[in-house]
Amino acid sequence: MRLIMMKVSAYDLNKIAEKLNLSIKDLNKAFSRKILREDEYKEIKTLLFKKEFKGIEKGTVIFLNDNLDVVRGYPKTYRAITLYPTIKKHFIDKVVIEEKLNGYNIRIVKIDGEVYALTRSGYICPFTTKKVKKFLNLEILDDYSEYMLCGEMIGINNPYTPYYYKEVDRGFENLGFYIFDIKERETNKSLPIKERINLCEKYNLPYVKPLAVVDKDEAHIHVREIIEKLNKEGREGVVLKDPDMAVSPIKYTTHYTQCEDLKSAFTFFFDLGMDFLFSRVVREGFMSYEFKETLEERKNRAKDLGEAILLPMVETINKVASGERVSEDFELIFDSEEDFDEFLDFMRKMKMVITIKNIEKIDTEEGVKIKAVIGKIYNKTNDKIISYLNGTLWE
Amino acid sequence: MRLIMMKVSAYDLNKIAEKLNLSIKDLNKAFSRKILREDEYKEIKTLLFKKEFKGIEKGTVIFLNDNLDVVRGYPKTYRAITLYPTIKKHFIDKVVIEEKLNGYNIRIVKIDGEVYALTRSGYICPFTTKKVKKFLNLEILDDYSEYMLCGEMIGINNPYTPYYYKEVDRGFENLGFYIFDIKERETNKSLPIKERINLCEKYNLPYVKPLAVVDKDEAHIHVREIIEKLNKEGREGVVLKDPDMAVSPIKYTTHYTQCEDLKSAFTFFFDLGMDFLFSRVVREGFMSYEFKETLEERKNRAKDLGEAILLPMVETINKVASGERVSEDFELIFDSEEDFDEFLDFMRKMKMVITIKNIEKIDTEEGVKIKAVIGKIYNKTNDKIISYLNGTLWE
Repeated sequence: MRLIMMKVSAYDLNKIAEKLNLSIKDLNKAFSRKILREDEYKEIKTLLFKKEFKGIEKGTVIFLNDNLDVVRGYPKTYRAITLYPTIKKHFIDKVVIEEKLNGYNIRIVKIDGEVYALTRSGYICPFTTKKVKKFLNLEILDDYSEYMLCGEMIGINNPYTPYYYKEVDRGFENLGFYIFDIKERETNKSLPIKERINLCEKYNLPYVKPLAVVDKDEAHIHVREIIEKLNKEGREGVVLKDPDMAVSPIKYTTHYTQCEDLKSAFTFFFDLGMDFLFSRVVREGFMSYEFKETLEERKNRAKDLGEAILLPMVETINKVASGERVSEDFELIFDSEEDFDEFLDFMRKMKMVITIKNIEKIDTEEGVKIKAVIGKIYNKTNDKIISYLNGTLWE
Repeated sequence: MRLIMMKVSAYDLNKIAEKLNLSIKDLNKAFSRKILREDEYKEIKTLLFKKEFKGIEKGTVIFLNDNLDVVRGYPKTYRAITLYPTIKKHFIDKVVIEEKLNGYNIRIVKIDGEVYALTRSGYICPFTTKKVKKFLNLEILDDYSEYMLCGEMIGINNPYTPYYYKEVDRGFENLGFYIFDIKERETNKSLPIKERINLCEKYNLPYVKPLAVVDKDEAHIHVREIIEKLNKEGREGVVLKDPDMAVSPIKYTTHYTQCEDLKSAFTFFFDLGMDFLFSRVVREGFMSYEFKETLEERKNRAKDLGEAILLPMVETINKVASGERVSEDFELIFDSEEDFDEFLDFMRKMKMVITIKNIEKIDTEEGVKIKAVIGKIYNKTNDKIISYLNGTLWE
């Protein structure tokens, strides 16, 4: 306890407390509970909120520079379980319907002249930082250093949510970034949607385009139509927003996504199955109810659900039974060996158990690159399957 | 703490400790952690182990009479996830295959000249106590008061696991008891299967008959055949036992049962769904793998699984949406109003939230009886569905 207090007092605790609108006592409580932790990226020291604490979002980062620059965590987006009356109750007047992309949430900031891409948890990701610097002209952060660009990094070639999107295909790499929110990074206040779009247009930045703007009273009808279309196209869902961002956004996802989530989770079922399962089936239950399905439609949904659970599970058991160690594989493109090494260090820091499955040099129109296949190992799934196949009893 | 110690010392702690092969220190620890609690049934005072503690099974009861009679809890029966090599590894030589009945586990004892039927948790159940006294001639417990008769109470007319069995149909009541184990109640030592059967025959007691006795090396083949037959007949599964009960029994259940479990659980999904779901789908995954199913067979299994989850869930949402409060209904037969009242008191003591849906007098060949329909209310399911239907967001 003493040690922590001394370390903390090396930075200006008063100023941090003031900036976060917390008392010194609370700040010390966050330290002693290990909610607030020190982190380091290259020479950059930060403090990181590992959990939500007294109104400060999980993933909030304080850069330990002279300014004590704060980057607030991206707030949790709550989910509508029914479209009606949820949308009507939640919103004020108009509702902006945006597509929800299935990638990973990134906040881009510029601090002391350097660009950083922060993951949802608040880590500076070297892989993503390099990609956004390459993909985007970030002049906007010179003019508005108080902003953070919040968006989704999507595409198959990423280490978090590898999911193919045709719109970000660049031949040798499928990866791209779309801004869905611009916020004041110290207050977490969002720009109104029109302002965000105007800024993105002005600075030539890719952004998520509204699919529709509708009255809240009829929104459930429009959202359902859009959801059914997105479902057919194999896309994730929607995020619904107030035009002025005066109330928090809410999300709603397709049947397709519920099943895809289950398929991924049940490929590594002893690691991921339990947490994913119940919430997905409940979403499907309420959707089937609200969409007033016929028994035949409902049985089709049930079939998809059952197959999304059972088929990947049995495939994994078969693989493990035949001696394979199952892993989730990512194919990533790096500019240099150094970048690759730096990324591996970061993965180790994140406590991910990974294995390098392949490395090769590839020629691209942007020069020679390194293509690496990295496998994320799910130990619990591998070990438990082996154990049950060898006769261990279930307690 | 002081109070507890004083209460405890009112009975002979030393003798209890000695009987349970525990130290006084451990016994006090069990009291202070509320693992060991006092209970009362009519004038009978008991101590009850609410959890497993240092080798003493959950549900173990000490009658606070002069003898300090002990009734050990019925041990957990572990589950085989794969038939091969699990059975071969677990057993010594021969394996007795018995049908597993889908009811509730009861231990029948005679203490100080009185018969009691104890539930798995160690409560003296007034309903079951009366039924077994009516159904069975329990002379065996006069001759062997050190034994407990362990068995399954099955049939639709019970308040725990109402499940129809044609073999226990008596016209106005579907209920019956089958002994599957006779144990020394103070040591938990089981009689060899043949001895158990001989005793049951001698005293004309109903018992679970072995379906087959097989070599452990080929048992998985026989069990699979039996499981497929039981599955077609809509029955629960098997319990595998050593003929001398020298190693613990293990269980294995049918696809039918996995689906039935899910159907019941998902009728009250916010109360029961989460706990039931993952284990059932994992059982199905390993069964599909071990039975080397074709893709078509696997897809049929997946369809059953999906429907067992989704259909009851949507049915419940529909009911709640139309204003109904969903409950699990039991139809029970009582000999008298007093018996009914006593049962209701017991349910309240068990913290069950129940509602009386109907009471009527019926004429039977055994005289006038009371037929009561009792509904068990699942508050969480009712309340949460209403809340989501009214627009509450999912966190």
